[in-house]
Amino acid sequence: MLTRNPNIANLKAGYLFPEIAKRRREFAAAHPAAKIISLGVGNTTEPVLPHTNAGLVDGAKKLGTAEGYSGYQDEGLPALREKISKVFYDGKFTLDEIFISDGAKCDIGRLQILFGAGTKIAVQDPSYPVYVDGSVLAGAAGSWIGTGYAGITYLPCTAENNFFPDLDAIPQNSLIYFCSPNNPTGAVSDRAQLSALVEAALSKGCIIIFDAAYSEFIRDPSLPKTIYEIDKADLCAIEVNSFSKPAGFTGVRLGWSVVPKALKYSTGESINADWNRIAGTIFNGASNIAQAGGLSALDDEGLNEIRKLTDFYLGNAKLIRDTLQKLGINCMGGDNSPYIWAHFPGRDSWEVFAEILEKCHVVTTPGAGFGPAGREFVRFSAFGHRTDVEEACRRLIGFGEH
Amino acid sequence: MLTRNPNIANLKAGYLFPEIAKRRREFAAAHPAAKIISLGVGNTTEPVLPHTNAGLVDGAKKLGTAEGYSGYQDEGLPALREKISKVFYDGKFTLDEIFISDGAKCDIGRLQILFGAGTKIAVQDPSYPVYVDGSVLAGAAGSWIGTGYAGITYLPCTAENNFFPDLDAIPQNSLIYFCSPNNPTGAVSDRAQLSALVEAALSKGCIIIFDAAYSEFIRDPSLPKTIYEIDKADLCAIEVNSFSKPAGFTGVRLGWSVVPKALKYSTGESINADWNRIAGTIFNGASNIAQAGGLSALDDEGLNEIRKLTDFYLGNAKLIRDTLQKLGINCMGGDNSPYIWAHFPGRDSWEVFAEILEKCHVVTTPGAGFGPAGREFVRFSAFGHRTDVEEACRRLIGFGEH
Repeated sequence: MLTRNPNIANLKAGYLFPEIAKRRREFAAAHPAAKIISLGVGNTTEPVLPHTNAGLVDGAKKLGTAEGYSGYQDEGLPALREKISKVFYDGKFTLDEIFISDGAKCDIGRLQILFGAGTKIAVQDPSYPVYVDGSVLAGAAGSWIGTGYAGITYLPCTAENNFFPDLDAIPQNSLIYFCSPNNPTGAVSDRAQLSALVEAALSKGCIIIFDAAYSEFIRDPSLPKTIYEIDKADLCAIEVNSFSKPAGFTGVRLGWSVVPKALKYSTGESINADWNRIAGTIFNGASNIAQAGGLSALDDEGLNEIRKLTDFYLGNAKLIRDTLQKLGINCMGGDNSPYIWAHFPGRDSWEVFAEILEKCHVVTTPGAGFGPAGREFVRFSAFGHRTDVEEACRRLIGFGEH
Repeated sequence: MLTRNPNIANLKAGYLFPEIAKRRREFAAAHPAAKIISLGVGNTTEPVLPHTNAGLVDGAKKLGTAEGYSGYQDEGLPALREKISKVFYDGKFTLDEIFISDGAKCDIGRLQILFGAGTKIAVQDPSYPVYVDGSVLAGAAGSWIGTGYAGITYLPCTAENNFFPDLDAIPQNSLIYFCSPNNPTGAVSDRAQLSALVEAALSKGCIIIFDAAYSEFIRDPSLPKTIYEIDKADLCAIEVNSFSKPAGFTGVRLGWSVVPKALKYSTGESINADWNRIAGTIFNGASNIAQAGGLSALDDEGLNEIRKLTDFYLGNAKLIRDTLQKLGINCMGGDNSPYIWAHFPGRDSWEVFAEILEKCHVVTTPGAGFGPAGREFVRFSAFGHRTDVEEACRRLIGFGEH
């Protein structure tokens, strides 16, 4: 029979979130009376708001009519690409620099094909697991050496450096995954920090994959919502983004990537042209129904709904953050981000996860799942119904008081 | 800057269908009065039928309600997986052997991750371009040597062998892409042929990726609609399939793959477990709206609609096939398949493509785009409105009579 791709054997344990789901199921089975509340996975819980939802419904209805029917839309609706450029980038990108996807995670998995096996990788530590696992599957991670992979440079983001990494540690000619607002720390990089990141990438011949999936949670107007607010970022950065969290599209599946035409390989070929070829070869476009919904989400009424929905989750975040602070727990995030990163100095995050699950029946995410620098932290997600979040906060306070 | 993945440079020219679209645009620009009819890309044209469409619309509406909202569904709706197993496989697979995808093409692109670079590949020649291009991107194709890749074994399917390949040519321990009903030839392998294929795979330690995307077009009840009708296929075959053609979901994006638990690597690890891990890591599930539509498409009323829609396209296929035969052109397919593979002995397929476009204003697909054995053939697709197909046939007759 055929042999197994050695890159798969190189993956460590299960993907984080299925592992958490498993532990939750085991706990539920052992404690059938417990009303478990999840502040774990960042999964949206609130309905799609009416105007955006009407876009989805109309998109579905149209497919039942001769005049409204459409088939393959590999490259994405031109109107949607135009709208994305206008709404998020002041129109500075042309249609063929915006690629519609079925979500940021899927594109993150595909983008590594541009550079291939053996690419040097740098990630913020902690970081969204897909950057590392995707690199492992692409054969770019090297071998596992205890706490991480030899081919990946982990850039610690800790309370000591205010959750922004030491850029001097970035290797020459590497692919840098960078996420702001950050998942899991909730930290948002400011303009000076992102300028320094772009400068480092340009001087070291690096390319940044900038994950802006949480940009719509930024409320501080001084904070950049896209890497392209920084001068020359189009020479060194690809941006991935998503409708999942701002429009409640986690299940609908819609995102986009920006691959500027100015972006080149060391030998001068266009990265944009290659991405166009790859997307056309092993991807067939996002659902046309999702795209119709995306168009509605980006008109004036839809943007108001995005504001309203992200405000709601930020309200949850504030409740959780206030609760943790009341308990004397230091935490990051939760103001311009739906994640709160809580510090439990000297403790193991899986232990803290288990304790909170056992005593409060609240699911969190252990920081160690996001990288070695997360081992003393637990992530609280603000995605949840308000009553559940309130109840979770009451239980946490009760737990903290004992 | 970073270097380019050498696998991308190894891709030959553009992906076939964008190339055809480009030639069509160029012709249209030069002949603005021409009413061009496409029998080229296999893109569905008829509306989604009412019952299935109601499933999509209800799926979209539910997302606007508190009780109906759902987020991530990475693994696919259990009810849909159950239904697929029941409708297509007599219930012989468990839920965790059925993986819901956003389409067969996307899964074909991802499945190679299981085996990795350096895997030996065998394809029918001609074949759907994604098998070859996907292998190139995965680093499994070897170098280009004139008419094909050194690491790919091309299995000619010609009139001489009745479009079924010589199985003796399949290398040991290779990954075999096999499509029936075949795209582009329209040939359907019978039970004896598929039994021989499974036997060859088992005796040579091969794994088959069986593309059954056109199975719902089979009308001859003696022909197998899935590879799993053959004994022991679950020991050597993965099947990919799709709602695109039978339910008109090309733009909706919904498919599935069957990865049986009995399938193992040479060293005994479970391929099913690896696929589960890969799908959870770099994919986030098909749209929940598409899945709701898929559920409707598979109940009794939906299955009637699938029959009706595929009957319609088969009606087109008969018109095209009859026309070509009237013109004395030998052709394969069009009876249990939406494709007609027309033979133009001694001629170059791109030339024939250009001539038909110029004289009839009809877009076809040149056979050379599917592999070296396609060079004297042109593919006609039966996807189109009836009036367009009738008009195209009139023009072809007119052209043939001169």
